Amino acid sequence: MNGDRQAITVMGLGSMGSALAATLLDSGHPLTVWNRSVSKAQPLADRGARLAATPEEAISASPLIITCVLDYDALHSVLDPVADALTGKALVNLTSGSPEQAQEAVTWARSHGIDYVDGAIMTTPPGVGSPEMMFLYSGSPAAFETHRPTLAALGDPLYLGSDPGLASLYDAALLGLMWSTMTGWLHGAALVGAEQTPATEFTPVAVRWLTAVAGFLTTYAVQVDAGRYPGDDATVDVQIAAIDHLIHAAALRGVDNALPELLRTAMQRAKAAGHGSDSYASLIEVLRIPMQGTPAGLSPTRPRRDDAV
Amino acid sequence: MNGDRQAITVMGLGSMGSALAATLLDSGHPLTVWNRSVSKAQPLADRGARLAATPEEAISASPLIITCVLDYDALHSVLDPVADALTGKALVNLTSGSPEQAQEAVTWARSHGIDYVDGAIMTTPPGVGSPEMMFLYSGSPAAFETHRPTLAALGDPLYLGSDPGLASLYDAALLGLMWSTMTGWLHGAALVGAEQTPATEFTPVAVRWLTAVAGFLTTYAVQVDAGRYPGDDATVDVQIAAIDHLIHAAALRGVDNALPELLRTAMQRAKAAGHGSDSYASLIEVLRIPMQGTPAGLSPTRPRRDDAV
Ligand SMILES: NC(=O)c1ccc[n+]([C@@H]2O[C@H](COP(=O)([O-])OP(=O)(O)OC[C@H]3O[C@@H](n4cnc5c(N)ncnc54)[C@H](OP(=O)(O)O)[C@@H]3O)[C@@H](O)[C@H]2O)c1
Ligand SMILES: NC(=O)c1ccc[n+]([C@@H]2O[C@H](COP(=O)([O-])OP(=O)(O)OC[C@H]3O[C@@H](n4cnc5c(N)ncnc54)[C@H](OP(=O)(O)O)[C@@H]3O)[C@@H](O)[C@H]2O)c1
Repeated sequence: MNGDRQAITVMGLGSMGSALAATLLDSGHPLTVWNRSVSKAQPLADRGARLAATPEEAISASPLIITCVLDYDALHSVLDPVADALTGKALVNLTSGSPEQAQEAVTWARSHGIDYVDGAIMTTPPGVGSPEMMFLYSGSPAAFETHRPTLAALGDPLYLGSDPGLASLYDAALLGLMWSTMTGWLHGAALVGAEQTPATEFTPVAVRWLTAVAGFLTTYAVQVDAGRYPGDDATVDVQIAAIDHLIHAAALRGVDNALPELLRTAMQRAKAAGHGSDSYASLIEVLRIPMQGTPAGLSPTRPRRDDAV
Repeated sequence: MNGDRQAITVMGLGSMGSALAATLLDSGHPLTVWNRSVSKAQPLADRGARLAATPEEAISASPLIITCVLDYDALHSVLDPVADALTGKALVNLTSGSPEQAQEAVTWARSHGIDYVDGAIMTTPPGVGSPEMMFLYSGSPAAFETHRPTLAALGDPLYLGSDPGLASLYDAALLGLMWSTMTGWLHGAALVGAEQTPATEFTPVAVRWLTAVAGFLTTYAVQVDAGRYPGDDATVDVQIAAIDHLIHAAALRGVDNALPELLRTAMQRAKAAGHGSDSYASLIEVLRIPMQGTPAGLSPTRPRRDDAV
């Protein structure tokens, strides 16, 4: 069964690394695993994975090394001492971090002749292995193309480009969307909950509404790219009028209004910038900070996406 | 063709009222229309609607009156002088307002023997008539049941309960979710845009991610109702660690961080309240303001949802 499947090594067997390793085992790949605390490797060894005693042994076992540890500090503490063993191999790093950390990692990898791909996992461990779940990748196009069929076992692989920072950048942007959406939903659940409506009754309506909202995003994306925001469906002025109903209703019911007040301020800034008759998409103009206001040490960098490659 | 269709009156022919009236005409109902400025009624008259010269004439033409004007001030200025003509009729008011305005309207309606239903339109004018779009209703169950088949021509009618304020309350909660989601998406679009990724490239990934987020909301709704928030998928502590990547990446790229900073503060408040190992759903606990902090004149009312009926 394992005959034509390529050998893979997974390093880092926390809850996510273990889910990755188990899924690769299930799909029939000869698998070598390593974890700092050996106890977490045992369940995988029991299911047929080969247990490596050291990072070197783990790396030498396969042409493809997948890493998933806590953070980049942990990653470097594991890989730096054994970097030479990685020369000529593909390293797919699924540890979460910033785009800047991914960029530093590719510089490090290049200096050791390692083919580096950075990845971001857009699901929780139970979602690993489901083709609906997105795994975002960026970095070496050659390594990604070679190993795409293997990576597809973990979830739907989306390749974002050769700048290794792109997967982390998308990860951050998508998590920001998630937190915003979840907090807006919690505010709404608290509001209707004050009138004895259970969250389980409100949420199917909210989820259905998100489908309509997704349609607005698709419309507004075109406006953002064009830098023109025709307010022919609903204007910023109309939204400002409506948000006062929300703030008033929430205040009356003892629900914290910090979030809608911030949103109103953003809308009012867009209006003050001349976007009152434009669509909500025009708020992107006030989210871009004028460059001169940036504190020292945080000077904006706007590299072209292929600069680092 | 109009033989078995009930007569309807639409009052208020702005962009939304005109869309409602046009859709009802298309579905074959004998339609009477009225608008303060008569010019907006002409296109409908040209397509076969009967033009009423006065509000009284409009009301006397049909057992079902649908109103859609700018706000409740406009509504009362039109209907108060002719309230007696509405006695015994069903009034479905699709004007946006607060739950409190809907509750005042039902008191007014009851004093005149009017069967009152309040509604909220969860789409823009071009979406009217599509069965995917939600129209939320609350108030008189009898009037809603009688006219449900007629209302179904406008969009999918969801009846929320007899408290007439519920449609407005859901409307406010859902718009809050929309603004939060759209602003989170714009922040993400600004972030990836700083690396030359077009919004039209980012948005399909964001829309797909929203499907996963909708799954989290469904899981978390059960937790909210139970008041227990097991952090077995991802904890508040993990989210706090991750949001710093977003804030750092956005600061480096000149993107305003007011929204993620507010979200981080909310997460930190949840952590301080003992929810560090709980799921994100635990943030609802810190969104509910302790009652003693409420300013005079905004004393929280928590009526049971059927109180007003
Ligand atoms: N869980 C999720 O839902 C999820 C979703 C998307 C992305 N991720 C990302 O996946 C990565 C792993 O997350 P997880 O949920 O698996 O976390 P976890 O369960 O806490 O596991 C952490 C892993 O990192 C290892 N580690 C920590 N410090 C180390 C060090 N100094 N040297 C060597 N190994 C070290 C741990 O080894 P020991 O066993 O020896 O402690 C363990 O294997 C993180 O970057 C996370 O952001 C997780
Ligand atoms: N447009 C949307 O996407 C949307 C979505 C959901 C809900 N809604 C709600 O639908 C309602 C109508 O919105 P719209 O988009 O149709 O607005 P609109 O195009 O501005 O039309 C406003 C309507 O209100 C009338 N009106 C205003 N003040 C009046 C007064 N004092 N007396 C009599 N009539 C008055 C206007 O009459 P004149 O023609 O004489 O000025 C017009 O018919 C609002 O409550 C809005 O929040 C709209």
